[in-house]
Amino acid sequence: MNTTITAEQLLQQLRWRYATKQFDPTRKVSETDWAALEEATLLAPSSFGLQPYQLLVVRDPALRKRLQLAAFNQAQIVDASHLVVFAAKSNLDEASIDTYLQRITQVRQVPAAKLAVFREMLINSVVKGMDDGARLAWARHQTYIALGILLSSAALRAIDACPMEGFDRGQFDEILGLPQKGLAATVLATVGYRSATDPYSLFPKVRFPKEQVWRCL
Amino acid sequence: MNTTITAEQLLQQLRWRYATKQFDPTRKVSETDWAALEEATLLAPSSFGLQPYQLLVVRDPALRKRLQLAAFNQAQIVDASHLVVFAAKSNLDEASIDTYLQRITQVRQVPAAKLAVFREMLINSVVKGMDDGARLAWARHQTYIALGILLSSAALRAIDACPMEGFDRGQFDEILGLPQKGLAATVLATVGYRSATDPYSLFPKVRFPKEQVWRCL
Repeated sequence: MNTTITAEQLLQQLRWRYATKQFDPTRKVSETDWAALEEATLLAPSSFGLQPYQLLVVRDPALRKRLQLAAFNQAQIVDASHLVVFAAKSNLDEASIDTYLQRITQVRQVPAAKLAVFREMLINSVVKGMDDGARLAWARHQTYIALGILLSSAALRAIDACPMEGFDRGQFDEILGLPQKGLAATVLATVGYRSATDPYSLFPKVRFPKEQVWRCL
Repeated sequence: MNTTITAEQLLQQLRWRYATKQFDPTRKVSETDWAALEEATLLAPSSFGLQPYQLLVVRDPALRKRLQLAAFNQAQIVDASHLVVFAAKSNLDEASIDTYLQRITQVRQVPAAKLAVFREMLINSVVKGMDDGARLAWARHQTYIALGILLSSAALRAIDACPMEGFDRGQFDEILGLPQKGLAATVLATVGYRSATDPYSLFPKVRFPKEQVWRCL
């Protein structure tokens, strides 16, 4: 079956999306729809395929209330159906690489010995080739690709979302106990359905003219 | 017209995509298809809507050959239909903020005076609130969201792509003269059509089990 979509479908849905400021707190994303968004985001590419992050769905209302205070009190944190914290792995080491290689041998049914050169390359690039700061920056970059996939996937399914960087990473880390888990809060997405009264849903989308962003060399 | 797509369309197309290693050098993305991908990526969200990047399409074959040498000689750089360099802005200042505010007044037909509070917030957050290194890191993050949107858009349109971080940023900057333009090469995407002989197109996709990536709190 051909599941390719048209350019019109793609562009209409991306034009429809906007950074939702007011979610309808009574509307929840269904389990089925949410499972599809999780699956779509799981399919996001990452450097070497390492997926150096966890995607944390905060369901506990009391916890979301505490996080809201660490996010300039923005309403989306508590009103959206789902709150996702993109948390980069801060503790990638040789053992993490081996866990990944085991996953490859399992999925692709290749003997571990065949991956020896790849293992060497990963360790030299990711573990030995970067200091802790550079490695975390690299891991954080990967979370933004996943964020982009989640946002476009939601838009194509007519589900609203708001990417959010306006929060205190240190406070999020502390509230969620992330350092002990080898994680570092990086960026958020709130997902749900826009409120009928969100004035931002009516504002024309502002983008620079295409020729100022896309340039030919 | 309802342009929402089904979960099956979304997931099938995202499963179909892979980091293309061998492009068919004879197949080009049509002008119409490319224009849609440019438009889709232009619609990517960014922090405060500032779009702190340019997306550089390198068409000159000689230039692509030189860039290939600065990218571990990877074939995609010259074989893909399109090479995109995501270049973060390294020179964002008060004037950049004002250019953006002018764009808002133009698109939304609001008087500049109405944006005074927003202007203050942008300058405090982006210009005064970050040193040069943090501001560039923040701008680079935004390019990865745009990359995610480009990759998912291409997949949904059955166009192949490969995100690439394996290149020498410094050499790319120098070859393309980016510092003089206030830009810094951050990440690449090659876009086109897979070669029928790319063995990677047949490998099962490796991802960690969903429950290891998505966690509930």
